[in-house]
Amino acid sequence: MRSLRLAMAQINCTVGDLEGNFKKIVSYLRRAREQGADIVVFPELAVTGYPPEDLLLKPSFIDDNLSVLNEIISESRGIAAVVGFVDKLEDIYNAAAFISDGKLIDVYHKTYLPNYGVFDEYRYFQAGKGYPVYDLYGIKIGVNICEDIWMPNGPLRSQALSGAEVIININASPYYKGKWKFRRHMLTARASDNLAIIAYNNMVGGQDELVFDGHGMIMNEQGKLIAQGPQFREALVVVDLDMESVFHARLIDPRSRVERYMHEDKRQRFVSVPAVPQPAREHMMPPEQTEPLEAMEEVFQALVLGTRDYVRKNGFSKVVVSLSGGIDSSIVAVVAVEAVGKENVQGTFFPFRYTSKESSDDAYRLAANLGIPITEIPIAPAYESMEAMLKDAFAGRERDVTEENLQARIRGNLLMALSNKFGWLVLTTGNKSEMSTGYATLYGDMAGGFAVIKDVPKTMVFELCRHVNRRYGKEVIPARVITKAPSAELRPGQKDSDSLPPYETLDPILKAYIEEDRDLDEMAQLGFDPEAVKRVIRLVDISEYKRRQSPPGIKITPRALGRDRRFPITNRYRSF
Amino acid sequence: MRSLRLAMAQINCTVGDLEGNFKKIVSYLRRAREQGADIVVFPELAVTGYPPEDLLLKPSFIDDNLSVLNEIISESRGIAAVVGFVDKLEDIYNAAAFISDGKLIDVYHKTYLPNYGVFDEYRYFQAGKGYPVYDLYGIKIGVNICEDIWMPNGPLRSQALSGAEVIININASPYYKGKWKFRRHMLTARASDNLAIIAYNNMVGGQDELVFDGHGMIMNEQGKLIAQGPQFREALVVVDLDMESVFHARLIDPRSRVERYMHEDKRQRFVSVPAVPQPAREHMMPPEQTEPLEAMEEVFQALVLGTRDYVRKNGFSKVVVSLSGGIDSSIVAVVAVEAVGKENVQGTFFPFRYTSKESSDDAYRLAANLGIPITEIPIAPAYESMEAMLKDAFAGRERDVTEENLQARIRGNLLMALSNKFGWLVLTTGNKSEMSTGYATLYGDMAGGFAVIKDVPKTMVFELCRHVNRRYGKEVIPARVITKAPSAELRPGQKDSDSLPPYETLDPILKAYIEEDRDLDEMAQLGFDPEAVKRVIRLVDISEYKRRQSPPGIKITPRALGRDRRFPITNRYRSF
Repeated sequence: MRSLRLAMAQINCTVGDLEGNFKKIVSYLRRAREQGADIVVFPELAVTGYPPEDLLLKPSFIDDNLSVLNEIISESRGIAAVVGFVDKLEDIYNAAAFISDGKLIDVYHKTYLPNYGVFDEYRYFQAGKGYPVYDLYGIKIGVNICEDIWMPNGPLRSQALSGAEVIININASPYYKGKWKFRRHMLTARASDNLAIIAYNNMVGGQDELVFDGHGMIMNEQGKLIAQGPQFREALVVVDLDMESVFHARLIDPRSRVERYMHEDKRQRFVSVPAVPQPAREHMMPPEQTEPLEAMEEVFQALVLGTRDYVRKNGFSKVVVSLSGGIDSSIVAVVAVEAVGKENVQGTFFPFRYTSKESSDDAYRLAANLGIPITEIPIAPAYESMEAMLKDAFAGRERDVTEENLQARIRGNLLMALSNKFGWLVLTTGNKSEMSTGYATLYGDMAGGFAVIKDVPKTMVFELCRHVNRRYGKEVIPARVITKAPSAELRPGQKDSDSLPPYETLDPILKAYIEEDRDLDEMAQLGFDPEAVKRVIRLVDISEYKRRQSPPGIKITPRALGRDRRFPITNRYRSF
Repeated sequence: MRSLRLAMAQINCTVGDLEGNFKKIVSYLRRAREQGADIVVFPELAVTGYPPEDLLLKPSFIDDNLSVLNEIISESRGIAAVVGFVDKLEDIYNAAAFISDGKLIDVYHKTYLPNYGVFDEYRYFQAGKGYPVYDLYGIKIGVNICEDIWMPNGPLRSQALSGAEVIININASPYYKGKWKFRRHMLTARASDNLAIIAYNNMVGGQDELVFDGHGMIMNEQGKLIAQGPQFREALVVVDLDMESVFHARLIDPRSRVERYMHEDKRQRFVSVPAVPQPAREHMMPPEQTEPLEAMEEVFQALVLGTRDYVRKNGFSKVVVSLSGGIDSSIVAVVAVEAVGKENVQGTFFPFRYTSKESSDDAYRLAANLGIPITEIPIAPAYESMEAMLKDAFAGRERDVTEENLQARIRGNLLMALSNKFGWLVLTTGNKSEMSTGYATLYGDMAGGFAVIKDVPKTMVFELCRHVNRRYGKEVIPARVITKAPSAELRPGQKDSDSLPPYETLDPILKAYIEEDRDLDEMAQLGFDPEAVKRVIRLVDISEYKRRQSPPGIKITPRALGRDRRFPITNRYRSF
């Protein structure tokens, strides 16, 4: 019986870490060979990490990446492999090397270069123009990269019509909540439309604003999911592909046979892979399939992986979180502990005259539940000296938001002083609702290295907290933190709802405006209160300057506030 | 005699200010008509401003821009005009409307979309595929947009071979020092290669990181500059083009005649513009031509325009600059006064125990020379209370950079407090040498809205200061500010040269590394000291996180530290 043992290496590469990526690739290649795989597949740009951004404009970076590819090739005795790297001809290409038994057989160049959202591939790459089909032990294999497979008439279609029975698609596909469903629907359609097995392999790991969620999938020629990789974890998924079944499906489908007969494509290229003696081996049982994570657990794990990788890949060991007793700092502390371990998380508490007893109790209770220490420093002495210093300059002026910002900025200074002295990375605690509306103090609560929940709307922060307590089977986050009315505690009796619409109103408006680019008329038609919409649009538009100076945070929605959304600061457009 | 009176409106549009841009376009259109122009030309995307960035993903923004274009059309009685706007068909295009006598005659779509450096046009636009040639009073005119003319075989070539005698090229071309020379050489070659008159019109004004320098040029068919617009100022340049001379040049050039005969291009489109009675008018004298500005005056004016437009277009009236008595804050104060007037500039002085008498004297002398007030606030009380607050947490630790950063951050807080209370925009004073090497305190001296000299290397700051004193014919910047050794004065006897190579060594290395992407080997071959190069590369690479949170500043070099240079923060690549 014709079969192919395919291994998908769903690995966590680091941008620029050519040596580390090399070691990881070779170690997975060896494991795949030990398991008798005919071919092992690595993610898009596995050699360089993704996205390498302007590193790609450095000739030495391109050359070093080629040297690493050559070392990988020489390690590939007795197995075939598909490895993502940057190819260099008269220009550079986002490429997949087809390697077999210590030799480079061929190179595929990505055809469709995404240049929207977080992607800038036209900035760097030339588009490929060839659709190779490889013949490995008489099995026809098409290779393509990421965006390519989203095009129904792209290389996949041509490769399948030229006889490819297995399509290998390698990815560095950034996570957002629920995105896997779109991938799965698309792959189901592509596999069944083309009567081809599809092996969709994805990178895993965090890189600045992005998290790659792994979750590779293998669909059979009926579009049925036959194997998948875990979400947010490295894995080697090994499967025996039943090629007879593909043959049979194509044989009994008269339309597909006519279409293949009629098909001609100048971009086609057939490449025969020299035969390697296949090892004797037993048929493998298909790997166990796990259900995809529940939505809040999925987001939680994305935040954990994004935070862990930002911390570790940037060479930090410890992080510090400013606890306020509120819900945002609470969830960030929980994510931090899960990401780097409680022994690597330091809490701080910086009370002032507006800090309630409840906030203090809640912050300490959370820290106790998590097992992390708190450094408490009351900010009154600094506040009072600053107030005195500014007295003359402020003579005759009313108190206003200045004095509130001052409190936040003194806290920011203390946090940065601790960070500088002890080498701790500061995790900031602002959520997407705040970042969108500018309800945050620049250089105050926005001061820090990484903004864990920057793309999590406040209403989802509540959901996440409830999920966390269910997840750990105990009240990690004190119940009151979740039930009390949110407040920045920068003046007596302050509530977030003094400055913003209630979050249940605000968050859907923000989603419509930021993620869906809807205007006032459309939102009014959708039933939103036009006055609330106007207020929110105005807040979002005028706070672009703050977002521009905010630390990076993890994308978990279809449009995050970072490289995903690029607005001018100087902008007089008002959509109403 | 066949002639065409062409007016180039070199105007300062504002991104998103559709109403304001409309008024400006119509006012220039009227002035051109009053001067008897046959045709008036506006810059690229004049209707929307450039670059509109993700505003282009808002359907309402596209529609509003079309409404404005329609209003402009109805204002265009008795004259032809070329107006940059966003066209909407099945997709959107960076477009030029050819208008005549109240009617839209045709639309050209930009063919070559830049997607490098500061440009992201593939993110937004579909590329055009037609090369129209317009017939206005029997004179053949080709229109194209910005990047198009940099391609020798682009639309210009095809249009010229199809008979176009005048090429109108509209631009939003960002300034950098000396860039006009490249434009001029290119335009000379294009005009003489194609025996065509070229009218190159450019936007003027500041937009976040970019300055558009105007400086439109008109080349005759021999490549000779026959008229130009001023640098950094709005203008209407009106010229009578001698079409007989183009006819004559083409008639006597046998190769060009053969080439035109042989030329065929599917992209061609011929459009006849209905005749409008031409007004009786006298022949105009060619406009007076001014020499381009001397290099340092050019940079100075770029900084002034960039600052003025950032302040005004964002709705601020006053700015505040933290004076230290050093050279960076001095040049920023001078630029600020030139940009918004001394009555709108506030100085501050925040001395501490390490502040020298000289620094204080120099800061006050500069302020007196400029006629701006200083608010002086010694920072000791806040520093001492913060030090006491941190005493327990820092127990057993040595003093280090933490205490230096604390001083800078207290100054940042004071500046932001004044900004918040009085609505002043904070201009920061960091130069490119510091921003590149991370020799600055995040949330300290980096705190503020606009970083005036962010792209000016320290050695050029010195040059600029000397230039400023020559320019005003007096010692505006005290001589000692320029001659003393630079110091941050954050500890006793501190000098910049304790932490950085001398600026004369540092700046050329930074240029080679940042602007030219050279690696260690190349730089060693160019004669740089390899140890100094390694030290500098390392400093640049590890300080990306700081730059990511810095305010925008004005691009004046071929590669600035902003959207022009996009590096990952998480990046383990070391080029040596």
